[in-house]
Amino acid sequence: MAKRRRRHHQSKKEGLPPGTPVYIGEVRDATVAITVFDYDATHVHEFTATDLAQLSDARISHRVTWVNVSGIHKVEIVEQVCQVFGVHPLAVEDICSTETRPKAEEYTDHLYLVVKMLTVEQGDEGARINAEHTSIIVGERFVLTFQEEHEGDVFDNVRKRLRDDRARIRSLGADFLAYALVDAIVDHYFAVLEWVGDQAEALEDQVLANSAPSQLSAIYWMRRELTFFRKQVWPLRDGLGLLMRSDGKRMSAEVVPFLRDVHDHTVQVVESIEVYREIVLGLVDLYMTTVSNRMNEVMKVLTVIATIFIPLTFVVGVYGMNFDNMPELHWQYGYFLTWGVMLAVVVTMLSVFRYKRWL
Amino acid sequence: MAKRRRRHHQSKKEGLPPGTPVYIGEVRDATVAITVFDYDATHVHEFTATDLAQLSDARISHRVTWVNVSGIHKVEIVEQVCQVFGVHPLAVEDICSTETRPKAEEYTDHLYLVVKMLTVEQGDEGARINAEHTSIIVGERFVLTFQEEHEGDVFDNVRKRLRDDRARIRSLGADFLAYALVDAIVDHYFAVLEWVGDQAEALEDQVLANSAPSQLSAIYWMRRELTFFRKQVWPLRDGLGLLMRSDGKRMSAEVVPFLRDVHDHTVQVVESIEVYREIVLGLVDLYMTTVSNRMNEVMKVLTVIATIFIPLTFVVGVYGMNFDNMPELHWQYGYFLTWGVMLAVVVTMLSVFRYKRWL
Amino acid sequence: MAKRRRRHHQSKKEGLPPGTPVYIGEVRDATVAITVFDYDATHVHEFTATDLAQLSDARISHRVTWVNVSGIHKVEIVEQVCQVFGVHPLAVEDICSTETRPKAEEYTDHLYLVVKMLTVEQGDEGARINAEHTSIIVGERFVLTFQEEHEGDVFDNVRKRLRDDRARIRSLGADFLAYALVDAIVDHYFAVLEWVGDQAEALEDQVLANSAPSQLSAIYWMRRELTFFRKQVWPLRDGLGLLMRSDGKRMSAEVVPFLRDVHDHTVQVVESIEVYREIVLGLVDLYMTTVSNRMNEVMKVLTVIATIFIPLTFVVGVYGMNFDNMPELHWQYGYFLTWGVMLAVVVTMLSVFRYKRWL
Amino acid sequence: MAKRRRRHHQSKKEGLPPGTPVYIGEVRDATVAITVFDYDATHVHEFTATDLAQLSDARISHRVTWVNVSGIHKVEIVEQVCQVFGVHPLAVEDICSTETRPKAEEYTDHLYLVVKMLTVEQGDEGARINAEHTSIIVGERFVLTFQEEHEGDVFDNVRKRLRDDRARIRSLGADFLAYALVDAIVDHYFAVLEWVGDQAEALEDQVLANSAPSQLSAIYWMRRELTFFRKQVWPLRDGLGLLMRSDGKRMSAEVVPFLRDVHDHTVQVVESIEVYREIVLGLVDLYMTTVSNRMNEVMKVLTVIATIFIPLTFVVGVYGMNFDNMPELHWQYGYFLTWGVMLAVVVTMLSVFRYKRWL
Amino acid sequence: MAKRRRRHHQSKKEGLPPGTPVYIGEVRDATVAITVFDYDATHVHEFTATDLAQLSDARISHRVTWVNVSGIHKVEIVEQVCQVFGVHPLAVEDICSTETRPKAEEYTDHLYLVVKMLTVEQGDEGARINAEHTSIIVGERFVLTFQEEHEGDVFDNVRKRLRDDRARIRSLGADFLAYALVDAIVDHYFAVLEWVGDQAEALEDQVLANSAPSQLSAIYWMRRELTFFRKQVWPLRDGLGLLMRSDGKRMSAEVVPFLRDVHDHTVQVVESIEVYREIVLGLVDLYMTTVSNRMNEVMKVLTVIATIFIPLTFVVGVYGMNFDNMPELHWQYGYFLTWGVMLAVVVTMLSVFRYKRWL
Repeated sequence: MAKRRRRHHQSKKEGLPPGTPVYIGEVRDATVAITVFDYDATHVHEFTATDLAQLSDARISHRVTWVNVSGIHKVEIVEQVCQVFGVHPLAVEDICSTETRPKAEEYTDHLYLVVKMLTVEQGDEGARINAEHTSIIVGERFVLTFQEEHEGDVFDNVRKRLRDDRARIRSLGADFLAYALVDAIVDHYFAVLEWVGDQAEALEDQVLANSAPSQLSAIYWMRRELTFFRKQVWPLRDGLGLLMRSDGKRMSAEVVPFLRDVHDHTVQVVESIEVYREIVLGLVDLYMTTVSNRMNEVMKVLTVIATIFIPLTFVVGVYGMNFDNMPELHWQYGYFLTWGVMLAVVVTMLSVFRYKRWL
Repeated sequence: MAKRRRRHHQSKKEGLPPGTPVYIGEVRDATVAITVFDYDATHVHEFTATDLAQLSDARISHRVTWVNVSGIHKVEIVEQVCQVFGVHPLAVEDICSTETRPKAEEYTDHLYLVVKMLTVEQGDEGARINAEHTSIIVGERFVLTFQEEHEGDVFDNVRKRLRDDRARIRSLGADFLAYALVDAIVDHYFAVLEWVGDQAEALEDQVLANSAPSQLSAIYWMRRELTFFRKQVWPLRDGLGLLMRSDGKRMSAEVVPFLRDVHDHTVQVVESIEVYREIVLGLVDLYMTTVSNRMNEVMKVLTVIATIFIPLTFVVGVYGMNFDNMPELHWQYGYFLTWGVMLAVVVTMLSVFRYKRWL
Repeated sequence: MAKRRRRHHQSKKEGLPPGTPVYIGEVRDATVAITVFDYDATHVHEFTATDLAQLSDARISHRVTWVNVSGIHKVEIVEQVCQVFGVHPLAVEDICSTETRPKAEEYTDHLYLVVKMLTVEQGDEGARINAEHTSIIVGERFVLTFQEEHEGDVFDNVRKRLRDDRARIRSLGADFLAYALVDAIVDHYFAVLEWVGDQAEALEDQVLANSAPSQLSAIYWMRRELTFFRKQVWPLRDGLGLLMRSDGKRMSAEVVPFLRDVHDHTVQVVESIEVYREIVLGLVDLYMTTVSNRMNEVMKVLTVIATIFIPLTFVVGVYGMNFDNMPELHWQYGYFLTWGVMLAVVVTMLSVFRYKRWL
Repeated sequence: MAKRRRRHHQSKKEGLPPGTPVYIGEVRDATVAITVFDYDATHVHEFTATDLAQLSDARISHRVTWVNVSGIHKVEIVEQVCQVFGVHPLAVEDICSTETRPKAEEYTDHLYLVVKMLTVEQGDEGARINAEHTSIIVGERFVLTFQEEHEGDVFDNVRKRLRDDRARIRSLGADFLAYALVDAIVDHYFAVLEWVGDQAEALEDQVLANSAPSQLSAIYWMRRELTFFRKQVWPLRDGLGLLMRSDGKRMSAEVVPFLRDVHDHTVQVVESIEVYREIVLGLVDLYMTTVSNRMNEVMKVLTVIATIFIPLTFVVGVYGMNFDNMPELHWQYGYFLTWGVMLAVVVTMLSVFRYKRWL
Repeated sequence: MAKRRRRHHQSKKEGLPPGTPVYIGEVRDATVAITVFDYDATHVHEFTATDLAQLSDARISHRVTWVNVSGIHKVEIVEQVCQVFGVHPLAVEDICSTETRPKAEEYTDHLYLVVKMLTVEQGDEGARINAEHTSIIVGERFVLTFQEEHEGDVFDNVRKRLRDDRARIRSLGADFLAYALVDAIVDHYFAVLEWVGDQAEALEDQVLANSAPSQLSAIYWMRRELTFFRKQVWPLRDGLGLLMRSDGKRMSAEVVPFLRDVHDHTVQVVESIEVYREIVLGLVDLYMTTVSNRMNEVMKVLTVIATIFIPLTFVVGVYGMNFDNMPELHWQYGYFLTWGVMLAVVVTMLSVFRYKRWL
């Protein structure tokens, strides 16, 4: 797994009046794309907006309008779009800051939702979870969505359904569209969860088979990824719970069971993350004990070899001494007797070791 | 214990409209069996349904109807059965996804319950806990149950009681039947708990008797099984608590004390799992300390042998030197004196070791 | 401390209709004793019941009736007694299962309380905490108690007070008697707590004085006993809290302050158990670090001896070589010079070790 | 720090009827002192009560009466004083038991508060935290306080203020006096906290500078003191919270902000204890890792010395063999060549070690 | 990171009547600066107050008055300023005690807020987080702020906005000013958080690259800084939550969304601290396992060298013996045969080690 580094600097915003939008996130220079869906049960109008007048027109229409802005680094564009739909300045500020945590907030004439779009990103140093800051504004007959970038979008499936004249989504309001978008994001969490699960099982297999120092940092990065993952999903649970209980004001009674469904999915993801965390903590223990066991093995071999040969070496040293008067040296079979004694010592020691279960 | 591997892929559902049922679970090709019980206090009609008209008829009857569908991998059959009884599409989606967590949900004209049927499964790699996704729909005068497979069913005891004309269950409504089914599942948790307890006690005995590296992975798998077990039971507690408090709307006042009873059993199972978790964590510590102790023992022996013989080997090395002028070599009893000195060294050292309690 | 083994098999009950009492607990064949107290402020009638008619008579009397059944393994007797007093079948089922957790349940015309009577049991393998399953049924003017066995009863003090004509308990109702019985059980928890405290302090002293491998399993069993103890007491807290808040329906306002008192004692016991748990966890750390320290000591000695003698042995080895041309061998004082060099090496090394604080 | 031993035996009370006061605490034989303050805004009468009639008189007076009883081991005196002021028997029981946990209880005509007066006690084995059981009864126009002993009283400052005619406390009711007494006790917790902080910082310095085995038990006792400290303060938080919310019944609205203040201080003490606990747990890790590091150091030296000399010793052993045909022995410069080879081996090895960063 | 030492002594306040302000904090002798902003939408009057009459005048004006007092060590000045604005004595006491924890309190005619102004302070021993005790009093048309010292003020940005005639803050009330001040402080927490993040990442890099004993105390201090950081921020969350829910009494409905925003930021900071805590705990494990791994490596080398040479040394010792009758010594190629045997031993051993993966 790749290293995870902080890239954002919320402190840039320090000292500015509240409600001043400042882009906080990775430096980007991609162009901003504004795509609009203006639909009702019978018609759907899809276009890329080039000036604000188009958005104003769409707002006035009696159809549901979905405006998707890809590229929040162009703060002035975000601000202009928001002004058209009368979004509260504090929401605008949060749209531009990628560090804002997932939440749901009710303003007088719109709802503001922050959800993190999670994907597994393949980098040079390995894969890791990438969190794209996504804001969803739900008003009467309009939904605004703001993303960091455009590629690899999980919203594509919603777009397909919108283009389909028979899809139920077309006959329902802006609140159902908002739900569908959140659902698309949360559904993709399961793909991330499966990637995490694959990593965890691979690590588990490796550690059980043979512990190598490289696994140690792999476990460590796994732990960090899970901490990151949980941080991105956990607060969403409370946000969705809040929406479910805000009886029928912004979210119609018809949408509430669907919200409960996506809330359930979020809880399921959080519970699975917790389970993986437990597994990884178990792996840390397993790794450490495996290492200890290894060392133990090594020590035992050293001990056995040393304890057998150290006395023998002493014995042969004795008869290497040059004293004038050493009777044993002149015995006919002294040499062979010495070998016999040494053999006896070895056999005795091996028996003791076997008895003590060191071999 | 056997390895536990993820087999389900919730991400298959990504991008589909909500309420689209997709089978998420192990690949199966068994046929689907639909068994029906249509009963009241005096009559019971039990049959295997072959077409949907039979189900429609049963629904219209004034008797309580229990439809059990074994085999949720045939999504279209699940959908058709659900349509006959007017089940909400979101519930149908959850019926087909084996990853859905235990819960209780109230829809306008039926209750939806998810319970995991747990069994100990003997596999090639050893035994492990198997969780079968079970859905229970409770409506007015009907209960639908959906299972993954048919064999080894914990519902058999309920069936026996239904066939018995004197059994109380026959004179009570659909809500009591639903309770009886949940109770049958939860009662079987105790068998799983006992298996877990046996494993834990066997491990405990082994670790206390003699720590071997193989125990390490056994402890690790034990830990994972407990995490899995808890994940399957824990949410059920909240689900049942919800039903108990939903005063008399779907669950009649007469059934509530029974619900409280099964809720109590669930809490008891969860508490026992927690106790086993504590025991297993204690075993990890015990194992690690036992390993350290062992190593300590080994080190002490090495130290004692080495510290005794290293100086002796030096002494005999001294008199193995070939200097022309080494007076001791020519003494009459130099050799025997050397032995004496060496013996004195050994005795002194052994006394010191004994004093320091290393022996 | 003695090993703790599961002895009960709740799974025996699987598949039976709810409310079917089955004895779950240790196999026993003792006879069942039914003792009855029938009292009011002026009279007390104490007898051992031999047939159910006696109980029916006592129930009808206008006095408070306390029936104590010792021996729940005779399920049929328990059932008959319960029938006389109209106890709910689910309560009867729980009375017979020794695995039921402590709780308080309100049925339409009686209260059901489960409390664990804890005692320190001296066994062959050492002492351990024994939990006796005790059920208390409180109805209007009657209290039923059910115990596993008769000997060493903590209820004896209540019996003495009942026999005393001036005791307050005589002039108060069944609810006060029930409180007095719970209070007697909870008061005895302090004796168990003191035994646990003595064990913990003894262990603490041993570990601080000198760590031996046997302490390891003692700490482990201590941990298990505390887990067991907490499991028996913790749920009682909630049960008593429930009773306190059930304003005056079953428990008269006069008894509530007494209930609060026994609730307080339960909380105090739970808090003390938590404190002992912390102490035992601290002991685990202490033990492990003490073991590490010991090993460190041993290693240092080995290192010092080895590092001093290994170079010396090399030196004497050099002059044991048999080269024809080794000038030093023929020096007049070569031998003595060698000794000098070796002494210098030893002195230098010892200084270095002392400087590095290894000695 | 000194050892902490349990001294009290709550089990002494077992079997007695509820409300029977029994002294539970250290054995004492000091005489009991009853000091009385009878005051209003203009007058203050301070005396040592010798008979109960004096207390009855004080109670009847329209002034606020504060009776302080030092010495709860004389149970009969405590009972008599309580009878004069109509204290509930259960409160009397708790007053005499030093094991009662901090709490606040409302009886029909008085409040009962348990607070622990903490002091740092210098003993023979070192200092430790001492907890003195203090009970405060607040009725209409009277406050009773019960302490274990008299010396070193934190109430002295309240007494001084009572004697001062201009002090606000004189013109306020019994509830304010009760607050002032609790405040005096809680204020003194900060002194204990500072002592704990000094101990923690001293330990921290020692462990960072040089880890010695004696620190291990110091850390352990520190941990126990913190557990003890928390146990004495934690429940007080709930007790004071209860009083604050019991709107104006016993505690007048004027006193509530003061209660909030003392509640805040209690929370502050608890939070600081938690911080110290974290620090001590950090110290345990630090100590253990420091010990491991030390051992590592020692091992490296042993390894370097052994790996350098073991091969050399082998080489010199080779040329100490006595074979008839060993050509090298007869070379002119064989001996010097051997030295050269050995030097080369040493230089190579040292380079490898340096490269691997073992030196 | 630098050491963190307690500097404050809350116990100084012991024994004083409640509401007596005493300065608790670092000893300072800087002069006290009182700066005043008196503004409405059209006018702003900024001056440094030299006597209290100026403050009284400002209070009476119909403009919003902000009085900032830098230097709470001059208790008498704090008291006088508070008297002018009718601040409750208990609030005055808390203003002067730098140990007061963050909180929000409602008094009858003003709100009292305690917030910690956190900065990263570069000291001689390294950098660390410095917490400056800041009190904010919000009344009708006035805000009082009290700080420990003046330099490096995070309030400067608010001052700039106040001086700007077009700034929205000028047309809003005292409650918005209070919000703006809290917001300025909380915004600066992100700078501290980034510094902490940099430290954590630097440590992470070091530990992964190469574990040195110095990292151990760095990790330890990191842990302490995080504990300190959390203690300063955590209670603020509850305080702000309290304000948000105190519907419209002191905080106008217009300001509530802004409060929610700053509350969100606080939660974000707390969550990030928790994430860093997890990372640091992960680092402790990583460090300890890295150290174990190192030791393992070292041990393996020692074992391999020792196990190879110890038997060889024995062999050469054998033929260094001086027995008269040792046939091998007189063999023509005995010496070369010995070398051959020894080579065979080495090769065998190396193969075994390679097979066992020790090399």
